[in-house]
Amino acid sequence: MNTLKIIKKEGYTIVQMNRGKVNAINYDMVQELRQVFRDIENDNAVKGAILTGQPHYFSAGLDLIELFHYDKKQIHDFFNVFGALFIELMQITKPVISAITGHSPAGGCVLAVATDNRFMADGEQYIIGLNEVAVNIQISQNLVETYAFWIGQGLASRYIMEGKLLNGKEALSSGLVDELVPLEQVLPKAEARMQQYLQADQEILLNTKNKLRKNLLSKLDLNAENSLKEAATLWWKPEIRTKMEAYVKSFSNKKKG
Amino acid sequence: MNTLKIIKKEGYTIVQMNRGKVNAINYDMVQELRQVFRDIENDNAVKGAILTGQPHYFSAGLDLIELFHYDKKQIHDFFNVFGALFIELMQITKPVISAITGHSPAGGCVLAVATDNRFMADGEQYIIGLNEVAVNIQISQNLVETYAFWIGQGLASRYIMEGKLLNGKEALSSGLVDELVPLEQVLPKAEARMQQYLQADQEILLNTKNKLRKNLLSKLDLNAENSLKEAATLWWKPEIRTKMEAYVKSFSNKKKG
Amino acid sequence: MNTLKIIKKEGYTIVQMNRGKVNAINYDMVQELRQVFRDIENDNAVKGAILTGQPHYFSAGLDLIELFHYDKKQIHDFFNVFGALFIELMQITKPVISAITGHSPAGGCVLAVATDNRFMADGEQYIIGLNEVAVNIQISQNLVETYAFWIGQGLASRYIMEGKLLNGKEALSSGLVDELVPLEQVLPKAEARMQQYLQADQEILLNTKNKLRKNLLSKLDLNAENSLKEAATLWWKPEIRTKMEAYVKSFSNKKKG
Repeated sequence: MNTLKIIKKEGYTIVQMNRGKVNAINYDMVQELRQVFRDIENDNAVKGAILTGQPHYFSAGLDLIELFHYDKKQIHDFFNVFGALFIELMQITKPVISAITGHSPAGGCVLAVATDNRFMADGEQYIIGLNEVAVNIQISQNLVETYAFWIGQGLASRYIMEGKLLNGKEALSSGLVDELVPLEQVLPKAEARMQQYLQADQEILLNTKNKLRKNLLSKLDLNAENSLKEAATLWWKPEIRTKMEAYVKSFSNKKKG
Repeated sequence: MNTLKIIKKEGYTIVQMNRGKVNAINYDMVQELRQVFRDIENDNAVKGAILTGQPHYFSAGLDLIELFHYDKKQIHDFFNVFGALFIELMQITKPVISAITGHSPAGGCVLAVATDNRFMADGEQYIIGLNEVAVNIQISQNLVETYAFWIGQGLASRYIMEGKLLNGKEALSSGLVDELVPLEQVLPKAEARMQQYLQADQEILLNTKNKLRKNLLSKLDLNAENSLKEAATLWWKPEIRTKMEAYVKSFSNKKKG
Repeated sequence: MNTLKIIKKEGYTIVQMNRGKVNAINYDMVQELRQVFRDIENDNAVKGAILTGQPHYFSAGLDLIELFHYDKKQIHDFFNVFGALFIELMQITKPVISAITGHSPAGGCVLAVATDNRFMADGEQYIIGLNEVAVNIQISQNLVETYAFWIGQGLASRYIMEGKLLNGKEALSSGLVDELVPLEQVLPKAEARMQQYLQADQEILLNTKNKLRKNLLSKLDLNAENSLKEAATLWWKPEIRTKMEAYVKSFSNKKKG
């Protein structure tokens, strides 16, 4: 694994995103996440998983600098596998908990909302949310439905239209995260919740998760090819490409400077 | 336009309801609103709209005094076009923002919940909500679903059964309004949000609004003839007619006195 | 009636659960509740009902000690009628209000969420919620959908997975209960709300309740045989049986000691 660190615990697995300081998501990371979670789902000894990041960044979202250099086929493939990752995470039958160690905008939030719980680091104005409209990326219907599942249709509508990033307090009051805890307590808190899940009768727990997700899953388009097709097409719209180029340049300069 | 004032801005239109002090809704106003929003939807130069009212009243709701004197055909026609207005507002593809300058009960709230954002005047116990049960008017299924979209099914159920009017604080905490601002800031706040929408890629913004509404629209009966048929029928129920007469008389006396 | 006390009021009926100190639910109580609510629904002179309990206990939920001694047929029958009771309560066309006089976990909460309003006693750490996962009982899809109706899908998902019992403050902020009032005010509060319902035009009120529930009812499996079949099967799983035995013994010892 080039982009992930896998920590095996008694009965569960910790998946730590481990790609630079900010865990920007590229094609390789998506494919590794898919592989790891497929393994977790298929391994009878593993009863659940925790997804976590690096201090200060759960994930900064898509690696726009790398993606900017993808060609048409690569962009098509990227959105295809990213859509597939989301759908696969949504369908995992075992409990999955996000230990959100810091910022989690856009793509970072996409991963988090596919899981059952979100414990987020408090205290340094970390942000989370679906700001796709603000960064000129087309959000999918699947993501809209899932965001609405956690925070309600009204807030999801307002926040997604606005491209709003939420601070911890807003994320908590909207229901996007379960709890805010000090950064060093995020992973222990997630592990404590996993222990609680491990104590339940596993058949009842998995039946229950299945029932809790049934209605939402019935609304999703489970064909990954469809879910982000529009995003892949609009990626190449000239006006958007121009804005993306300006963004990538400004960001690259910042990194150099 | 006899009941509306139309203010054209760079890229968007402000629709100010302008019928007396309280903007009571009659047949003419409904038809003018339908015409204006049809024009907005069809004009490529217009990217969105703001719906607003007069100081202290967004709209007091249906003009019960005028409606009391409508004959059977007129009542049938009124509920028909009012149902159509709601459906048309719900289907506008462009962003629409309510700048709620004061009271907004019943019919006033109907218009507001069809839009994407609601900025409401704070500070003088302005009320908003669907109190149809309390005033003996049959609410439509379309309105029930839409109210639940914004404030959740549980609160919608409790508040609609009770015929509850919410003060600003309740409207804010329930999610019925986005934000409370001083009266003189309501329109500027709505305009600032519109500016934000104008800066987004319009194709992405409209795709996104479409996705946010898709699930709700699929639940609505888009045949206007159906949506308020019950309301038109129950309007003539003798016991309700008697109560309405008493209300209209007391109100007319108040106006004279 | 062996397990209920029925109090007839002008226009409505108070159904007081009256089985020991904690109102533990057994087969007889379920059947009596079904009978009483069928009578209420069919009696034109009765416009609504209030369901209440004993001081400190609305209902402690299923009578696990009695149920532990049921044989296979009895368990099958119990879950069958309990599923039927829930479905029947959900379909009552008249307003029903819960006056929650104290603790209301699991089965107690099941009854409460089928009604239109929940006024709960404040002040002594009374708890309410669906903790089925924690007590090794399989929750039904019908109950999942109904809990989500009141508190939203996100909270319902998190709370049910965790098997969480909510204190009054959490129940209020999540929307599970309408209001917290002092214990002696719970029933008067429910009666005041019933008076308000009685003042509405009854045709409009019942039409409105019907519309408010339509979407939820369309999601439920109205075949009682199905709804708790899994619960009845898993009841006999050896590991769960062992845990239940330990629980029943510890509880019986406590009662003796």
